[in-house]
Amino acid sequence: MNDEKLELEIEKILNFIEEKKFNDLRKYLENVNSADFPSMFEELEDGQDLLVYRLLSKEQAAEVFAELDSDVQEKLINAFTDRELKNIIDELFMDDTVDLIEEMPSNVVKRILNNINKTDRKIVNELLNYPEDSAGSIMTTEFIDLKENMSVEEAFAKIKKIGLQKETVYNCYVLSIDRKIKGVIDIKELLVAERDAKLKDIMDTNVITVSTLEDQEEVAKMFDKYNMYALPVVDKEARLVGIITIDDAIDVMQEETSEDFEIMAAMTPNEESYFKTSVFKHAKNRIVWLLVLMFSAMITGSIITHYEEAFSALPILVSFIPMLMGTGGNCGSQSSTLIIRGLAMDEIKLKDYFRALWKEIRVSIVVGIILAIANGARIMIQYHDFKLALVVGLTLIGIVIIAKMLGCTLPMLAKKLKLDPAIMAAPLITTVSDTCSVLLFFQIAVAILHI
Amino acid sequence: MNDEKLELEIEKILNFIEEKKFNDLRKYLENVNSADFPSMFEELEDGQDLLVYRLLSKEQAAEVFAELDSDVQEKLINAFTDRELKNIIDELFMDDTVDLIEEMPSNVVKRILNNINKTDRKIVNELLNYPEDSAGSIMTTEFIDLKENMSVEEAFAKIKKIGLQKETVYNCYVLSIDRKIKGVIDIKELLVAERDAKLKDIMDTNVITVSTLEDQEEVAKMFDKYNMYALPVVDKEARLVGIITIDDAIDVMQEETSEDFEIMAAMTPNEESYFKTSVFKHAKNRIVWLLVLMFSAMITGSIITHYEEAFSALPILVSFIPMLMGTGGNCGSQSSTLIIRGLAMDEIKLKDYFRALWKEIRVSIVVGIILAIANGARIMIQYHDFKLALVVGLTLIGIVIIAKMLGCTLPMLAKKLKLDPAIMAAPLITTVSDTCSVLLFFQIAVAILHI
Repeated sequence: MNDEKLELEIEKILNFIEEKKFNDLRKYLENVNSADFPSMFEELEDGQDLLVYRLLSKEQAAEVFAELDSDVQEKLINAFTDRELKNIIDELFMDDTVDLIEEMPSNVVKRILNNINKTDRKIVNELLNYPEDSAGSIMTTEFIDLKENMSVEEAFAKIKKIGLQKETVYNCYVLSIDRKIKGVIDIKELLVAERDAKLKDIMDTNVITVSTLEDQEEVAKMFDKYNMYALPVVDKEARLVGIITIDDAIDVMQEETSEDFEIMAAMTPNEESYFKTSVFKHAKNRIVWLLVLMFSAMITGSIITHYEEAFSALPILVSFIPMLMGTGGNCGSQSSTLIIRGLAMDEIKLKDYFRALWKEIRVSIVVGIILAIANGARIMIQYHDFKLALVVGLTLIGIVIIAKMLGCTLPMLAKKLKLDPAIMAAPLITTVSDTCSVLLFFQIAVAILHI
Repeated sequence: MNDEKLELEIEKILNFIEEKKFNDLRKYLENVNSADFPSMFEELEDGQDLLVYRLLSKEQAAEVFAELDSDVQEKLINAFTDRELKNIIDELFMDDTVDLIEEMPSNVVKRILNNINKTDRKIVNELLNYPEDSAGSIMTTEFIDLKENMSVEEAFAKIKKIGLQKETVYNCYVLSIDRKIKGVIDIKELLVAERDAKLKDIMDTNVITVSTLEDQEEVAKMFDKYNMYALPVVDKEARLVGIITIDDAIDVMQEETSEDFEIMAAMTPNEESYFKTSVFKHAKNRIVWLLVLMFSAMITGSIITHYEEAFSALPILVSFIPMLMGTGGNCGSQSSTLIIRGLAMDEIKLKDYFRALWKEIRVSIVVGIILAIANGARIMIQYHDFKLALVVGLTLIGIVIIAKMLGCTLPMLAKKLKLDPAIMAAPLITTVSDTCSVLLFFQIAVAILHI
């Protein structure tokens, strides 16, 4: 929904409240999509949000609650009676309950746990114990399980009975007595099958599963690759303990992409949104890398000091430094971005290193020569100095090759060392290539210009 | 599937081929996931791939075909008889057929169109006419349509009859006689409803739709926001003409993210994968921005020339240039990355500009002071020169503030001008902030050191 529509919607709601037409408001809210409530709640005043929330049906209330930002959730819980809290928790899916508990301060968590029924509390505690960012921590335990000797008709009867409490009915799992997966049935297969067919004859026995401890990034990749709608999660004994649905996988993808963007811009990744993060948190996330890179850049500075004689003899040399450093940095970040993204998308693998390096070298030569010619032409026009044009041109070609080799090598080296390739992005590559650029430039200048 | 498993799988397949055990191979292939075939085909020799492909069942063949890279698809089509080609095309979903036609050279397209039946050809031609990257161009026309007066039982009967030919049965659409959407039914609702209930009583009338001309990026955002599994696409007369399924939306998300990464690293975005792109195409994608940025960086160079006197008097000044430029660039790219990502995720809106700017200014002051102190300490230790420490420190604070303001402002300005904010990323921000850095540095140096 776009902004204007939202404003219109809020205006209407405020009107209902003002005129105390709560029944009309209740009816109106039934047709508002759950996903639109978070931005709406931001615009409502304290008290109004609680009023609106209390007008929702039990089912919609849980759906909306799961969508809200954690600070709004906290505010609502604090305003809830225990009964209201219990109603919400009962309606929430397990994975949403776990997300909620992970976000809330301890006093709120205590209240939540007090209002969960005993069996659910046990499950929640188990889910909370999975490592952060593992498949276990994002799965839900509400899936449809069937038996292989059931007929299609019997399966339909079971789904009709329990379907509403399950997060998805699109995929049903056929389990053995000891809860191991024997097969999966897409609801489409069930719907087109004959009513008296046995599940064991229509189920797909080739089931893709993940372990509870699998990294969530790998989970997201599997969804992308296999076009699944839900992924079963199994424990060490290969028993089905939960499923991950595609909407949660999309959230993981977005989260991991944001993380990559942040790491690639030399920041500590941060799960909170931009405005929810305090100024000091922002500063803290950014300062570490800035300090590291600042001190690294001093190496380049000291190289320059080393060539003081050269640029004292020919001060014009200094004016080329920004252009050379800039071009090297840009070339390096182009390559590293492509390699990092390629690794993340599994398009580039570690064994492809030499193939990628050879590609980068050839690209560098083409790009380097074009840049050298463009720059040479400009130097000839401006300074009529062929030797200077030669120095700058050769340096450019050298820098482009070095920068692109660095941009290709460092991310793959990081991957090899089991580090996140994203740390080897523009900022680090630029700093390293700056040092190389200045060194190469003065070496070539001294050799050709004899200064 | 990881690499070792894949190698094992290929080894087995090669063994079957060598021993001419084609029946065993056929059975073995039934249990290989369609998504694993593309990487497998890369490892097979010419002829072997065709052999393997011909052993697949008609249904699996179509599924596998849709997953393959376009160069493999082309090779297979050229080896197919017309009958084989017709079989594949008949089994492919409309959106996959359209994708295929868009990728193939004209002689292959001609053969494909000759082997499509008349009604399908008309639909394909309509789909091909939608603008690139529009909702119409990625939708499929195979969805389940029901009527509001049908009972649940009748709906099941219809789904049983036509379900297999439809891309998804998870969402069914209730249409009026003139094919306008009256409601949507999640298959879960249908499964838990009483058999004699009327669809009009259980359908959800609050349907989110997009127009055929909507940008695919907006489509992907809607999936992310509304947790849908399929999105109905309507024409100008509000008639349902197709649906977009979530797996295609994920592909769009990944494609758009890759595009952002490439634009943010100063490259022309490229839909082909890294290794599929030729050296010259790579060079072409990278050279334009490199030239623009190289010439822009010369402005910084000419500013330095302007202050020749200053650094001839105090050559040590030059050695601070890389560190100052680097820090400015890094600060700017941190901010621009957060803003660009925030805009892409709709977490930051244009109306938030001053709020974001104010946040960046406060973060800059904190970060700038820390960097200035760290650097000042180092200068005092190394050179025992308070005035120099003051010059560098003040410059640092100024640069951080300017760079972060640029990083916040330029992407939002681009968005305001309906340009892609991603072009205002690190490379451009760095080049602009470099100029500011050098200018500020020499201004402060001249003022304080009186050189």
